[in-house]
Amino acid sequence: MIKMAIDMMGSDLGPKALAEGVKAFLKNHNDIELHLYGDETILSKLFSEENVYIHNTTQIVPMEVGSLEFLRLKESSMYCALSDTAKNDYDAVVSAGSTGGFLTGATLIIKNIEGVRRAGFCAPFLTMIEGKQVAILDIGASNHNSAEDLHCFAKLGSIYANSVWKLDRPGVYILNNGTEEGKGPQEIKDAYALMKADESLNFKGNVEAREVMSGNCDVVVCQGFPGNIYLKASEGMAKNMSTLLSKAFHHSILTKLSYLLVRKQIKHMKEIMNYKKIGGAITLGLNKVVVKAHGNSDGYSFEHALILAYNMCEANIVEKIKEEFR
Amino acid sequence: MIKMAIDMMGSDLGPKALAEGVKAFLKNHNDIELHLYGDETILSKLFSEENVYIHNTTQIVPMEVGSLEFLRLKESSMYCALSDTAKNDYDAVVSAGSTGGFLTGATLIIKNIEGVRRAGFCAPFLTMIEGKQVAILDIGASNHNSAEDLHCFAKLGSIYANSVWKLDRPGVYILNNGTEEGKGPQEIKDAYALMKADESLNFKGNVEAREVMSGNCDVVVCQGFPGNIYLKASEGMAKNMSTLLSKAFHHSILTKLSYLLVRKQIKHMKEIMNYKKIGGAITLGLNKVVVKAHGNSDGYSFEHALILAYNMCEANIVEKIKEEFR
Repeated sequence: MIKMAIDMMGSDLGPKALAEGVKAFLKNHNDIELHLYGDETILSKLFSEENVYIHNTTQIVPMEVGSLEFLRLKESSMYCALSDTAKNDYDAVVSAGSTGGFLTGATLIIKNIEGVRRAGFCAPFLTMIEGKQVAILDIGASNHNSAEDLHCFAKLGSIYANSVWKLDRPGVYILNNGTEEGKGPQEIKDAYALMKADESLNFKGNVEAREVMSGNCDVVVCQGFPGNIYLKASEGMAKNMSTLLSKAFHHSILTKLSYLLVRKQIKHMKEIMNYKKIGGAITLGLNKVVVKAHGNSDGYSFEHALILAYNMCEANIVEKIKEEFR
Repeated sequence: MIKMAIDMMGSDLGPKALAEGVKAFLKNHNDIELHLYGDETILSKLFSEENVYIHNTTQIVPMEVGSLEFLRLKESSMYCALSDTAKNDYDAVVSAGSTGGFLTGATLIIKNIEGVRRAGFCAPFLTMIEGKQVAILDIGASNHNSAEDLHCFAKLGSIYANSVWKLDRPGVYILNNGTEEGKGPQEIKDAYALMKADESLNFKGNVEAREVMSGNCDVVVCQGFPGNIYLKASEGMAKNMSTLLSKAFHHSILTKLSYLLVRKQIKHMKEIMNYKKIGGAITLGLNKVVVKAHGNSDGYSFEHALILAYNMCEANIVEKIKEEFR
């Protein structure tokens, strides 16, 4: 039986939105025990399922929390979910709350698997090939990463793509400013050499940012800072184009009519780009499955964050990483 | 009279495509002298204007040239255009050829203005506000930049926005992984302090990648490597969404009809995003105006690269940078 701890106080949209996600998830998953952390007076009204346990907490971690401030909030839903996961036999912990707080807490409380020099914060990302995802890491847990860190990320991402996506020898790339060997900053050149020499990896070389979502890559490794820029630049452009498209269709009666005729295809296009069905980002290399749901999680998005955690537990990824790094 | 050197052998589409751009440019600009570098047998058939001078060259720089290899191609159209610009009283040099070769050549042959510690490779970028651009630098001339480099880029970008766009005290931002002061790698924290202390700048703090194109920023500075990632991630997402949109409209007779009804607005949307009307990227901080036209320049795009160079010459930007850095 898979056991998961859930911080119910994290989302911008409040615990009721998250509760919808939990309920939808429970409909399709029976072999599960859920431990919900948050305000008992709210949560006890929302849940009566016998495999759901409510743990009352009295503090909430603010979205823009500093690391030190987070560590003082020991009665918060996020802190208690993390620390009970570390102490108990829970398999996973999920939160939609402050990314900074959650990453700090996960690193200090759940701790790295022995032999993992740096855990990677990883976004499974949608691609142009429907149903095909790409794992990008690190997307911002670190600011700076050494060549050895990048090599570690490559191994972690490769284990993820192999065990969760069931890909045989997933193709691993480095995000760089050109495709030729020898491009980029020194750490990336050195990481290239390390990864090329590692026969356990199916290393494919450099990839430029414009090709990451083509569907050709399974795993893309990068330093946390440019990884974060990559993620947010892509998000920003997607949002800008959606805004312009929406304006175009709202222009007049005729363009509104036009929308009715193409609506089904536009919805399909939005579905291909719908990041909510990924649920969130994951931390690879820690002693438990750790999923950071989107900060603005609604029920649908949070359900998918729980599915993401569940799939990682079922694939036994923590044990597989332990074996690989032994 | 403004004098410009033009490498006519650079574009993927060949000298005839560039010639169309030159001719379109000449229609609206009379007070100009153009020096065209390339194969005389081709160019002499295309031009008979009396303010156009053809300089025969016998080599072509390949798109994927290395720095050392470029420096050996002394009879190439690109090398000759650069070196004649440095030697003569030309004001500007424009090429659509190899970015690596052109940046190497411009740096070694045209050289930095005295006091400029590092020239910045800058992309004027379109924003969500029609007609409003943002200058982003560095976008990949360097891999790594110090806090002092970033401060230098801020001054260069600010002079550009002020002299070419006529903006009074343009707002300058640093591209970072969060908006709060104290975020990001050490060089960026240090650059933040330098820029905040420089009263000649209208420094506005950090900006995240998803907000760069909002239209609120005039100048955004970044290290060359993440700058390059930013640029290509944005390009990639724009291309992916255009592909999906085009598929949606091509789906059936009904969706094709739908396109006819919204065509004008979609064209307007594409025009807002049309990077070809920017013409290319510029290098700020060198002793001449240096414009790198898009590698796939067609006539329209190359005309705009020439307009970009012309506007910089007219704004007297090289002299203004010299004054500011004296």
